[in-house]
Amino acid sequence: MKFIDKIINRLESINSHVCIGLDSRYDRIPYIFKKNQTVLNAIFAFNKNVIEATHHLATAYKSNLAFYAGFEHDGFEAAKLTNEYIKSYYPEIPIIADCKRSEMGESAKMTKQEIFDWLQFDCIMVTPWFGEDTVSQYLQDKKQGVCVYIHNSNPSAGEFQDLALKNGKYLYEVVAERVSKVWNSNGNIFVEAGATYPEQLKKIRKIIGEDMPLLTAGIGAQGAPVENVKGLFGKNKKRLLVNSSRNIIFAGENRKDYFLAVKEAAENLCNDLLRVTKL
Amino acid sequence: MKFIDKIINRLESINSHVCIGLDSRYDRIPYIFKKNQTVLNAIFAFNKNVIEATHHLATAYKSNLAFYAGFEHDGFEAAKLTNEYIKSYYPEIPIIADCKRSEMGESAKMTKQEIFDWLQFDCIMVTPWFGEDTVSQYLQDKKQGVCVYIHNSNPSAGEFQDLALKNGKYLYEVVAERVSKVWNSNGNIFVEAGATYPEQLKKIRKIIGEDMPLLTAGIGAQGAPVENVKGLFGKNKKRLLVNSSRNIIFAGENRKDYFLAVKEAAENLCNDLLRVTKL
Repeated sequence: MKFIDKIINRLESINSHVCIGLDSRYDRIPYIFKKNQTVLNAIFAFNKNVIEATHHLATAYKSNLAFYAGFEHDGFEAAKLTNEYIKSYYPEIPIIADCKRSEMGESAKMTKQEIFDWLQFDCIMVTPWFGEDTVSQYLQDKKQGVCVYIHNSNPSAGEFQDLALKNGKYLYEVVAERVSKVWNSNGNIFVEAGATYPEQLKKIRKIIGEDMPLLTAGIGAQGAPVENVKGLFGKNKKRLLVNSSRNIIFAGENRKDYFLAVKEAAENLCNDLLRVTKL
Repeated sequence: MKFIDKIINRLESINSHVCIGLDSRYDRIPYIFKKNQTVLNAIFAFNKNVIEATHHLATAYKSNLAFYAGFEHDGFEAAKLTNEYIKSYYPEIPIIADCKRSEMGESAKMTKQEIFDWLQFDCIMVTPWFGEDTVSQYLQDKKQGVCVYIHNSNPSAGEFQDLALKNGKYLYEVVAERVSKVWNSNGNIFVEAGATYPEQLKKIRKIIGEDMPLLTAGIGAQGAPVENVKGLFGKNKKRLLVNSSRNIIFAGENRKDYFLAVKEAAENLCNDLLRVTKL
């Protein structure tokens, strides 16, 4: 199945916009998972519990690979086992590598080996800084997806992304245009933009059109209100994914029923977003 | 010692501008290293031979981490062992991670663990797409360096980097300004720009000034003539590093005396560059 269809089918079949960020850094995992366990076993066991608590609401899982790479071989192996687990039990859920890899040519082929063949992700996220060469290696196989960071949620995101160009547009607008109209030659690209910059987010939905999935982040832990995505759900209101990481997977901190809290946090975000679709 | 001083001291003490790119992808390593060996042993043994053939001319070693990550655990371990080997025998040679990691905040702390603590690099390369947040985690410790990709050597590099801004400048110029004048608050940042775009390269040297090291690539395998770096050597003609990867480390292909060819390729580039300093 084409990666983009996998995302859209999943969104339509469960009617949830929630992308769960498995940013499961070892040092924040509850002690009960770590006691007498390797780092690998601790992260993998924690992730399995998060997945069991959230899979019914997960339109996608997204792992920021840095949180795994920081824990060396065990971290990478935990990412791989987690993805294999999702593929075994919930093969309909797409898995996104939030890895900001931006390689080209021969080194992009190596990154394909790392992200798709080894770690078993379905989709890679890349920065657009080096132009179209950054995505061209990922376009041939439609089963694999590419997601491009257009305008981010972090405080300094606008430093370059919001620069005004001579042609009257802003840099992020031109990037959104190129990605959606030129780079997307094979139908397996989509884009990411932060909900902490609502004006830019709106503009990006307008540029990419109603059909392309849009992944957003920054609601919750980064302070953007859920209403910032009003009107941006796209075709049939089924083209928006809202990622939440810390606020869901660590929702059980200071709670006895850790994974019930995780499940509730995912459900709350899911319901909040469904409410916004009706505004 | 401050990372930037380590680079400059090395350049001054051996009078070479050559940065050796250890992009030692397993599938291009000679068969003799692979026979009856693990991937880890093959890559590590090959790298040790390259280092022994080139260390007298190496102002720095730079590894594109994608070529290691493509070969999974063995690849990462080979990168780590290679860096430990350099630190044991040639501790005066700086080691740069060409990894295009562009994390921020908590995830940048994890990338620090990956690149500096685990893999033993001295310097990380990042894309500037997300603004200053991308480098702020790396500025505290002056022993560690940060190198920012300003204008690259690949064909599509200009797609965004060469966009004309409303203020009359080009995007890459504003990035070079911000990195050298604003981000460089602790003296451990330098920049990379491709020699395949000589006009932009010249402009970047002008913007960053004579004192900041400039790393360039694209001479040789990517077709830029060595004369493209004329006049860009900076203060005392000791602020320019020219990376070469494939053209040096695989110079022995189809040669019986593989590592003599590697040594000669490094010497040729070194001599070519010294000739250009006198033009």
